[in-house]
Amino acid sequence: MKAADPANRVLVFTQFEDVAYSPCGIPYVHGKEIPDFQSLFLADKQAYVDAGIEISYETTVRSIDTAAKRVHVEGVGEVAYDALVVATGFDYKDPGVPGSDLDGLYRVKNIRAAMEWDKVLDTVKRAVVVEASPLGLEMVTALAHRGIETHVIDPHPWALGDLCDPDVVAPVQESWAEMGVQMHWNTKLEAFLDDGAGHVRGVATSGGELPAELVVVATHKVPSNALAVAGGLAIGSTGGVVVNDHMLTSVPGVFAAGDVCEIPHIAGVPLQGLTGSHAYAQGKVAGFNAGGGDRSYQPVYVPWATVAGKWIIGGVAFGEVAAEALGMPYVVGRATGISRARYFPGVKPVRVKLLAEPGSLRLIGAQMVGGEGIKERADFLGVAVKKGLTLHDLATMENVYSPPIGALNEPIAVAAQDGVAAAARGA
Amino acid sequence: MKAADPANRVLVFTQFEDVAYSPCGIPYVHGKEIPDFQSLFLADKQAYVDAGIEISYETTVRSIDTAAKRVHVEGVGEVAYDALVVATGFDYKDPGVPGSDLDGLYRVKNIRAAMEWDKVLDTVKRAVVVEASPLGLEMVTALAHRGIETHVIDPHPWALGDLCDPDVVAPVQESWAEMGVQMHWNTKLEAFLDDGAGHVRGVATSGGELPAELVVVATHKVPSNALAVAGGLAIGSTGGVVVNDHMLTSVPGVFAAGDVCEIPHIAGVPLQGLTGSHAYAQGKVAGFNAGGGDRSYQPVYVPWATVAGKWIIGGVAFGEVAAEALGMPYVVGRATGISRARYFPGVKPVRVKLLAEPGSLRLIGAQMVGGEGIKERADFLGVAVKKGLTLHDLATMENVYSPPIGALNEPIAVAAQDGVAAAARGA
Repeated sequence: MKAADPANRVLVFTQFEDVAYSPCGIPYVHGKEIPDFQSLFLADKQAYVDAGIEISYETTVRSIDTAAKRVHVEGVGEVAYDALVVATGFDYKDPGVPGSDLDGLYRVKNIRAAMEWDKVLDTVKRAVVVEASPLGLEMVTALAHRGIETHVIDPHPWALGDLCDPDVVAPVQESWAEMGVQMHWNTKLEAFLDDGAGHVRGVATSGGELPAELVVVATHKVPSNALAVAGGLAIGSTGGVVVNDHMLTSVPGVFAAGDVCEIPHIAGVPLQGLTGSHAYAQGKVAGFNAGGGDRSYQPVYVPWATVAGKWIIGGVAFGEVAAEALGMPYVVGRATGISRARYFPGVKPVRVKLLAEPGSLRLIGAQMVGGEGIKERADFLGVAVKKGLTLHDLATMENVYSPPIGALNEPIAVAAQDGVAAAARGA
Repeated sequence: MKAADPANRVLVFTQFEDVAYSPCGIPYVHGKEIPDFQSLFLADKQAYVDAGIEISYETTVRSIDTAAKRVHVEGVGEVAYDALVVATGFDYKDPGVPGSDLDGLYRVKNIRAAMEWDKVLDTVKRAVVVEASPLGLEMVTALAHRGIETHVIDPHPWALGDLCDPDVVAPVQESWAEMGVQMHWNTKLEAFLDDGAGHVRGVATSGGELPAELVVVATHKVPSNALAVAGGLAIGSTGGVVVNDHMLTSVPGVFAAGDVCEIPHIAGVPLQGLTGSHAYAQGKVAGFNAGGGDRSYQPVYVPWATVAGKWIIGGVAFGEVAAEALGMPYVVGRATGISRARYFPGVKPVRVKLLAEPGSLRLIGAQMVGGEGIKERADFLGVAVKKGLTLHDLATMENVYSPPIGALNEPIAVAAQDGVAAAARGA
């Protein structure tokens, strides 16, 4: 809002003790890859004071009255606004089983809580992670790094079941097995088990009981939409606040950004619960427009990548599982290449799968697993999907060849060549 | 040729003892980053025998008679062909100064010679690299890694003077200085100095004499075109054999590929002496067409990247120096970002500069320097230039944010946003 007009007065209400830290870094502190929580803070509170932004910490907004253009803030009273941005974020989906209020259930979110949980982890011998979601992957890897006996349960037949194809996630699961992780697929959570003193002692699942002193609840993210619902904002099929391309909700003057909202995706399917990068970009658009500016948020194709086990997996838009679920026909091209010259120390495999629309061979998605360069390739392929590039375009792309940093053949190009050949064979 | 038709008989004549190794790896063996030369071999000779390819080693082709469709091979006689591929490669440009036939001048090319030179390097205390060309950069870095007192002389005011902008190469030069490399810019080679016994004892330059026991001649690559010239193939302004998009020369049935040929570039400027990746792709097209197939080679925008000092530099198409030399107007966007989350161990800076056509803001080139992901970004931006993407497209690109592998903001996007803002200001 200050970018749109420095004269704008900006008030922020947050129920938390802190702002401006990176929650995405929490699993890596737990995994001992980042030395401390302090390094996750981006700016101190004074920086916001200096910037003229008025933040009220540990303050809860109880309701929104869009007709009167004011919010009710606990302990403060009514606060009027000209424009409002709702950024209430997400909650982990309630698994809907007994025992969800026991001690020892860890829902990764708040950095102060994470600092306390980190001390608990020093005492934990055995942990269960509920669902191999993106956060679940990071926490499984972190707990295993930390030497804790780690179990993961998930109702899908493989990790990231909704998002990721089994061939792409297979190396991750192999490396987890090498790290001692015990995986329980096709396994439903039935209860968190009480030790009799209000602390979790394990979980009951469709495959039996698993004892554990700690359970990480890494179920899917759902919009934290209670305020928005009560305030009368239109809610979409995902439970997210519906916004237009200006991040404007159904109510004039009220914007939303981040995990609380849903945005239109390819083929009109709404998407919710994207990445910190998306939330940041949405927040900039929503804030700028709330401050009197005029910016659009572009359609998203959601390049993603994460470290899991000893691999990096990633992709963009549709993989085979998603395309089949949506009934989208596709041609597929695959290649397994390498990240550097074959003989250069540190060389790692890079496996690429490209999906394209039959006929036009226009790229509709990609999935990758490898050791290096997955994030940059996912970014590239995100632009490629958005701009309508085809397998022909990618099959004839040039690539850098330099032994320490790039192989003779770029795996994306080889996968595209494979897809072109498959299409020509009518495969 | 076998890919076009497995029944094709393929004869290969090479003056060297070996085929199918990676000469690009040689500097890294010298620098002790790759343990041995054996690992540079891709396949043994039997593999070609098994594939039905008849290779004559240490065999010199003396002439081409395109009218009679035959070549004269020393020690063999006349060999008829239906289709011919000329792939005679490059030579280092003769500096045109006295002493160019002294012992102790190392022109990096042949792996057997490199094995012998590697033993010599054990005895060398002081070396001069003539020209900070792409190979010169690799050799300067390798010799310095090896603990040899390394000097580089170049007539340009900075390294990679034709290719790279000074702001992008500055960090490389700083890291060379830290490694003890002594740089002599704006310095012309005047002579290789004879120690009286036919061995080099140093170089005479426009800035004085530099003693050295070894001189690496890393002047620009020029096409090794003697056979082609004598055979009557049309030669272009770079000295390279002129080819069309099928890698066909001016003579029917005669193709050319790799460093011996020149190919059309953006704005019709011919290019010669590209990378191993380009040579490989050209060879596939030339061979396929020589074998009766029909494939085109696409226009090139030449994404490039290399390790230099402690950095990786790279780019695609035009930087500021090249654009100014060609009189091309441009808008520039710059950003310095990071390769991972700010707090994640191993995070490295990534500096990106994007050049775009004023008005349309269509990307015309990029230059980068950083610690990670430069090769993948150069590949991406190569496709972006080729497909006519604009700074607007890049400014609104999505990016992967995951602390160990990608920062909240992608430097390419931030540089594009800077360029859009600069254009709006009329900068």
